[in-house]
Amino acid sequence: MDYASLIRPVPDFPEPGILFRDITPLLLDAGACRSAVSELADWAGPLKPDLVLAAESRGFILGGALAQTLDIGFVPARKPGRLPSETLSVDYRLEYGSDSLEVHTDSIFDGARVLVHDDLIATGGTALAKINAIEKLGGEVVGCAFLIELDGLGGRWHISPHPMHALVNLPAQE
Amino acid sequence: MDYASLIRPVPDFPEPGILFRDITPLLLDAGACRSAVSELADWAGPLKPDLVLAAESRGFILGGALAQTLDIGFVPARKPGRLPSETLSVDYRLEYGSDSLEVHTDSIFDGARVLVHDDLIATGGTALAKINAIEKLGGEVVGCAFLIELDGLGGRWHISPHPMHALVNLPAQE
Repeated sequence: MDYASLIRPVPDFPEPGILFRDITPLLLDAGACRSAVSELADWAGPLKPDLVLAAESRGFILGGALAQTLDIGFVPARKPGRLPSETLSVDYRLEYGSDSLEVHTDSIFDGARVLVHDDLIATGGTALAKINAIEKLGGEVVGCAFLIELDGLGGRWHISPHPMHALVNLPAQE
Repeated sequence: MDYASLIRPVPDFPEPGILFRDITPLLLDAGACRSAVSELADWAGPLKPDLVLAAESRGFILGGALAQTLDIGFVPARKPGRLPSETLSVDYRLEYGSDSLEVHTDSIFDGARVLVHDDLIATGGTALAKINAIEKLGGEVVGCAFLIELDGLGGRWHISPHPMHALVNLPAQE
């Protein structure tokens, strides 16, 4: 499947100098979504995850479908103040700026095998924050599954030695 | 399926006087998610939608799985400034406050049959905004599918005559 042709490059978004990768054309294509989720599930299945953890907002879309395909529960990681019950908060650096995310403390049971998902890995900052949150809550990260890996930003290196898979590699800049 | 037992009531969130309905316990339960998506798809299938449109962030989770089950494309409605290409913006009132949402203008093709999804309908303000956006872009709203309907807030009335279905009815206040 040629995913790259369904991912729209948008220069200077959300800030000058950033080449944004817009997955909305791919989301419109049911066959491409089905193929992407199926490929990610085929890779992740043998890791025997109990849960998928994904961050808002784009990670929720294929993440929800991925949890459904793997027939496992879904844990949302959210921006500060969005989750209503007791949370663990972790800080991280973005490709542009910094932020933090929160996970419900009762969402990861002790020893849970957790698959991290997001639409894209750039520097790996948010992925690492998710990994830290899962491990602090007593879970085990069995792998990280992405649609897109941006090359040259060290994301894969930052989250090693956790197994990682991406369906398409794209340059961080053209 | 007893969905209500998997939805956690959180008083005074995000503001005093609001009884928040937290779906994260349900999301952890793969069987409940599978059942919910299957029930929503069974209701929506005969309406022959071409696309599912859902709003960030919670609507993305089951919305992504619902699009997958129906084998149709997914259109994200997002908060202002989040979508990188040309958008249509619509304003709406919330149960608490007001906001606006944006949809990519190239996401709804002329005559597209669109299913609106969200985790919850309260007053129907966001659902009506989504309906307005779809119709302004030349699409046809074939129905609105929710996990939760809050009773007594007029949501169902606000979006009539569009067909609507919710899997569980809960009081807006205990």
